[in-house]
Order: sequence, then structure tokens, then C-alpha cells
Amino acid sequence: MENVGRVNKLGLGPSGALEAAGNLTVRAVLNMLMDQVDKEDGKPVVPLGHGDPSRFPCFRTTPVAEEAIVEALHSADYNCYCPATGIPSARRFRCLLILTSSCCNCSIAEYLSKDLPYKLSPDDVYVTCGCTQGIETILSVLACPGANIILPKPGFPFYESRAAFSQLEVRHYNLIPERGWEVDLDAVQALADENTAAMVIINPGNPCGTVFTYEHLFKIANTAKKLGIFVIADEVYGHLTFGNTPFVPMGTFGQIVPVLTLGSISKRWMVPGWRLGWMVICDPNGVLKETKIVESIESFLNISADPATFIQGAIPFIIENTKDDFFNKNVDLLRRTSSICYDKIKEIDCITCPHKPDASMFVMVKINLGYLEDIADCIDFSCKLAKEESVITMPGRALGLENWLRITFAIDPASLEIGLDRMKSFCERHAKVM
Amino acid sequence: MENVGRVNKLGLGPSGALEAAGNLTVRAVLNMLMDQVDKEDGKPVVPLGHGDPSRFPCFRTTPVAEEAIVEALHSADYNCYCPATGIPSARRFRCLLILTSSCCNCSIAEYLSKDLPYKLSPDDVYVTCGCTQGIETILSVLACPGANIILPKPGFPFYESRAAFSQLEVRHYNLIPERGWEVDLDAVQALADENTAAMVIINPGNPCGTVFTYEHLFKIANTAKKLGIFVIADEVYGHLTFGNTPFVPMGTFGQIVPVLTLGSISKRWMVPGWRLGWMVICDPNGVLKETKIVESIESFLNISADPATFIQGAIPFIIENTKDDFFNKNVDLLRRTSSICYDKIKEIDCITCPHKPDASMFVMVKINLGYLEDIADCIDFSCKLAKEESVITMPGRALGLENWLRITFAIDPASLEIGLDRMKSFCERHAKVM
Repeated sequence: MENVGRVNKLGLGPSGALEAAGNLTVRAVLNMLMDQVDKEDGKPVVPLGHGDPSRFPCFRTTPVAEEAIVEALHSADYNCYCPATGIPSARRFRCLLILTSSCCNCSIAEYLSKDLPYKLSPDDVYVTCGCTQGIETILSVLACPGANIILPKPGFPFYESRAAFSQLEVRHYNLIPERGWEVDLDAVQALADENTAAMVIINPGNPCGTVFTYEHLFKIANTAKKLGIFVIADEVYGHLTFGNTPFVPMGTFGQIVPVLTLGSISKRWMVPGWRLGWMVICDPNGVLKETKIVESIESFLNISADPATFIQGAIPFIIENTKDDFFNKNVDLLRRTSSICYDKIKEIDCITCPHKPDASMFVMVKINLGYLEDIADCIDFSCKLAKEESVITMPGRALGLENWLRITFAIDPASLEIGLDRMKSFCERHAKVM
Repeated sequence: MENVGRVNKLGLGPSGALEAAGNLTVRAVLNMLMDQVDKEDGKPVVPLGHGDPSRFPCFRTTPVAEEAIVEALHSADYNCYCPATGIPSARRFRCLLILTSSCCNCSIAEYLSKDLPYKLSPDDVYVTCGCTQGIETILSVLACPGANIILPKPGFPFYESRAAFSQLEVRHYNLIPERGWEVDLDAVQALADENTAAMVIINPGNPCGTVFTYEHLFKIANTAKKLGIFVIADEVYGHLTFGNTPFVPMGTFGQIVPVLTLGSISKRWMVPGWRLGWMVICDPNGVLKETKIVESIESFLNISADPATFIQGAIPFIIENTKDDFFNKNVDLLRRTSSICYDKIKEIDCITCPHKPDASMFVMVKINLGYLEDIADCIDFSCKLAKEESVITMPGRALGLENWLRITFAIDPASLEIGLDRMKSFCERHAKVM
């Protein structure tokens, strides 16, 4: 197999872009940490590493959503290939032909339009395999020699991974902990040049657990407008806010600057494993169409996998019939667990939390290494914590912020308390004798 | 938005690789043809263009499969992210942690091992969003400057699209109609050079509707071995054979040459919309591992979307409990519709079928343009047929064979007869007066 070896050496192989891309992901870090866990010691693993509360009964999805899937499946109308996503006329045709009275794209357009000052059309909506495929799509579309994109730090490393794979240059602006993790807009202005296509915001924030005010979003829109770039608004945690600042979709400012909104049912409906997301053109002035970004998105989706058709078929029913009670119950529970988390962390000497979380499922905390005896850095902290206490946390290095930790509070309250108590003992055990 | 426009012009935009890639797909061609259909004339559309019988009651999937999905969903064990696909130890961990007694990868490994002279391990199996994502993955992994891959002509244009997007050079060998659409192995040898990584076979054949004999597959294996390349065996139509030649998986020859097998539940279970496929390393000598191809596949899947977790969760039950009756009923029906198709086509003067189909869901037929008055080529034929008769067929140009047509017989017998009768009238109406 001389060729196989030789050809792979030329290319993306393990020393190339692909390995760099693959190693940066949340999944790769979680795998590495899970391998540290001592399977013999019998302590149940406490997963504070990623935002997936779906396996805890208190966060179970609504029966409305499960029933919608069962109905779609039993109808046998959705075992087929999804007829098309690419071409608008075909999208309309699909509505007529298959999804009869209401269609997946129509219902997502309507759902999102409720919070916008203009109405989205079903043609503005592209259904994706979770938010993941939305990120993959837009970064693939923007990747070209010399182009760059501006990302938040700390952020969600899947952006960096996909950009590395597509060889799209990334530049990072800081989120400022002292200002409630707001965007450093001066930095954005300093970073952008004539080859900058877009800036990404993740709001409500992963990993920082905050939500931007209307005023801050307005400033972001005007900055992007001034720079001639568009905004990619990752709103996968949309509506998951439990403080005083309400969630405002970035699309609100679509008349100032074109916005590409990414979202999904993963978080609000607590079903990340259903892999149903969307990518929405919030651009009433048609700039993204005029500059052919929309056409490139459609071309890319034409050569990409679709979400399962019967899950798409269930979406209109899910969106129309989920009651506010379900959403409110989850938000109330996240408010409670975020407070438990914040209060417990305050009790741990070597960890500081600059900002009480009021949105999403996470909080970022700083490790004060000077207080610890034998912990080299955040990776070492997370590895030893996994090994000794079976508690999984996300080391800040994976998110762009060395010696911080991301902790999720989206797990059941009792497990959260156990996990944080174990983290406290761990820190006490490793504390420097002062 | 100066930047947005300028940056897109640099890149993949509509004049670049992305458009070239997106326009070649079956989906894009079908969309184009559906746009031709006269919505006013009231004739129901007869879809002979693609292989998706799932909406015809006679091809409905087994209740076993539907119930497995409902069970997985109602268990609420599979609403979560799929914990990992990339790292073998994590894959084993996943089995223990979530998929308890049997796991998706284990059951696929067992299912495929039944037809192989060696046993696959669950670590040889990668679950994908349909066969589509398997193709995307391996072509992305192999793409590097200078590398090339050898594809069949006629073939399945998604290979060409993804290769164009990844800028992977493709070279085409012919399938020979006079020899039952066998591979022209002399051509393969002439095409391969030191930068050739692999050759693709699609068996049972799309678009040709034939299945290779054991002897022919053995020759393919030895040719690939001699050339130092591996074989990508697209077996998405595996087991759908209804003539005298049985289906033999290419992995049978994995000890001669490494084989990467692509498959899915889409066709055998008649559920293409469920988007559940696999990519399997049939390579008992470990060549693909040694040459780091496996590592690159894992890196790529680490930055890719997964199939819905609850569909993965249903797979063990589906595979273990589907009865042969279901498979036999479908194969019998395909045998019947393939005969209807072959016989009806024989009655049409301007169309020739060189080989009676005995596998998959398709037949390739030649348009004798000399017999037709005002038909310029196969695209013109398919467009006018869609417009005048609401019958959709796949023009050969999209599959690499100018002035041929691909026709599917995987629809209910009555609709098939109607569609082919309409095609006959169409041809008579457009016949040259001799």
C-alpha cells in the first residue's frame, strides 16, 4: 500500500490541518478527560463539562415534542429524502407537496419572526443538522485565500476547529469579564481589515453565561456596519435567560447590518441529540443575497447531509404546541442551579467567578494557581479533578482562556451540589500551605 | 457591505468550486426538472428520477423499525449528544455508559460480519448521517494537493461534487455496458499513478442496476493491490439483488486489499430520510490504520455533525429484529418492477436498454437521438418529458454518460406503468418521420 501511505503524507493526515482541527473540539477534550476517570472507585461521574442536561429527568423534554416525532414517524410521510433545501422554488414546492398545511421552514420563520421588527420568509430559513452544521456551512462558504473572520475569546472551539480545517484565518476579540463579558468593540475595530468577512457573537453566551443588552447589540451592529462586515449570531441558547436582561435576537438589527442567525431546538427543548438546527438570513435589505453569500450557502447545503426528514416533519407541531409552562419550568430550574453554582464556587478559595451567570448553561471561573500546590495549569486541573473526583470540567485553554474553567450548571441540583463539593475537597487537598 | 462582496468574490462564491460542486448533484437536477413540470395540467408527477420508494405504501418500512425508534425516543436515554465517535476508547466507553447491553456500532459490526470471512470490531465502524456523510468524510480525508481518486462512469454525481468542493482530482474509468457494466480494469490500471489514493466501486450498481460477481470483485481487489491503492466500496444498495448473481461485499477481499465500505439503512429498510449510515474499515491487516487514514477519518468526524442519537439508539433493535420476510417482499417487488420496466422500455423505439437490471433500483438506457425530431440531448429529453408528461428521469449527463437516462423502477407497479406509458407517448410524439 505504498500509495495509501504516501498520499496521506501529502495531505490532511494527522500532522496536517485535519488533526489540528480535530483536536481542538469540546468532544476531543471530553473524551480525553473521560479517559482519566478512575472506573474502579465507584463514584458516579458528574458531567460539568458540556451543556447537555437531557439525561436528567428534571430537564426531560416536553411530551409534545416526543409525540410530534412519533406522529411524523407513524404517518410514513417522512421516511423519504428531504426533497430539497437548496433552491427557493423547490423549497416552496416542498411545502405544497409534502409538508402540506405547514412546513418546517415556515414554522421556524414564524417562530423567529415573533421577536423581530420585520417578518422572515420561509426562504430565509435553512434547516441544518444542529447548529454544528450551520457553523460548518458558513465557515466553508467564507473560506478563501486571504479571508478572515473575527471570533470571541473565550468562545466555542468548534469555530476554531472548522476554520482550521477550511484554512480560514481567525482573529480573536476579547470578551471582558469586568464588563459582564461584553464584546471589546475597540478590539474588533482594530482586528478588521478589508479581508474580514464577518464577526461571530454567541449570545446568550457560551462559555460566559451572560446575555448582551439591547444597547450593546445595537453597538455591535453599528460597529459591524462601519467595518463593512456582517454578523454571525450564534443564538443556540436563545431564550435561556434568568436574570434582569432579556434575550434580544441580533436579527433585531438586521436593517442596520446583515445578520446570519444560527439556532436549534437543542437547548430550549433540551434535545441536543435530535440534531435539528437552523441558519436564518436576517437581512431585510438583501445584502447577503446581492453579495451571493446566500447562493454559496445553498450550493454548500446541496452537497451536505440533511437532518432526518421525520424530525423536520415534526417541527411545525413542536413549535406550535409547546407550552410556555415547559420553557418557564426549565428557565426557573436553570436560575436555581446557576445560583447553587455561584454560591458553591464562592466557597472555594482558589477559584474566582467574576460574574454571576444569568443566561445559557455555563459559568466561566478563574483558577488562582498561586493558591494550589501541584497544579500546573487548567488542563492539569481538569485532568486531576477527573481522575480523583470523577468530576468533568472544561479547561479554559480549549476555549481560548488559559487557566480558567467552564462549568455547566445545567444538571440536576443534587448532582451539581455533589460535583461542586467534590471540587471543593479537591482544591482543599491541593491547596498550598500558606 | 463592501467587505462582504469583496471577500466572497475572492472565494468559493458562485463562480468558484462551490458552485461547480453544488450544481452537479442529483438534487439540483431533480429541482431543475421539478420546476419544468406543468402544475396546471393535473397529471400526478411520476418520480422515476431517484431511488426513494419510501412514500409508496407497497415499499413502506417494517413496523419493527418504526417501533424501535419510538422505543428509543420514549426511553429518553437518547435525547443527549452522542458522546463521541472519534476515539476508540471513548467508543467503548459509550457502549458501557449509554447504549448498555448492545450498541449501534456493535450491532452494525455484527450485521456486516455475517457476510465476511473475518469478524469486524465495533471500533471498525463509524456511524454517519447516511452514506452521504461517509462519502464527504473519505473524500475530505483524501483531498490534498496533487492527490487523485478513481471513480466509475457512469456513477453517482455526489462523488464528483464533493471532490470538486475539496479540490480532489478525479479520474474516471468506464463501466462497460456490453459486459454487464463491469469495471474496465485496464482503464483503472492506465489511470492510476503514484498520487492515486483509492478507487470507488458502487455495488450493487447505481446507476446501472447490476451486481458484480465474486470473480469480478476478486479481480478488482487484485488490481487495486497491484496499484497500491485501496477500494472504497459503496454498498448502499447491498442485498438488493434479484437475478442470479448474489451480492458479495467487497470486504470479503479485505485481506487482499484494504476496503472502506459505505452503507446505510436507507435502501434495504426503505428509509432514506432517517439519515443513518456507516463507514466501515474492512482491513484485517491494519493498513488503513498504519497509514493514518483511520486517524484522519476520526479527526474529520470529530468536527462533523452526527446522526440523531435516538436513531442510533434504535439500530441494534432494528438490525436484530427485522425479519427476512420484509427483505424478501421488497426484493420480490423490485424483481417484478424491474421486469415491468425492462419490458416497457423494449416497446419504446428510440430507447435501448443494453442490460436487464438485476440489482439496486435503477436501469441505464440509451436515447437514440437519431430517431427523435426535436430533442437535442438527454437534458432536453428529461426537461421536455417533465414538462409535457410530468415524468421525472435522470439525464445521463449528470451521471457522466451523455444521452443516456437513468430510470428507477423502485416505485409502485401501477405508477411505474403509467410513467413508462407516458414516456412512450412522448417518444412517439417526438419521433422523426422516417
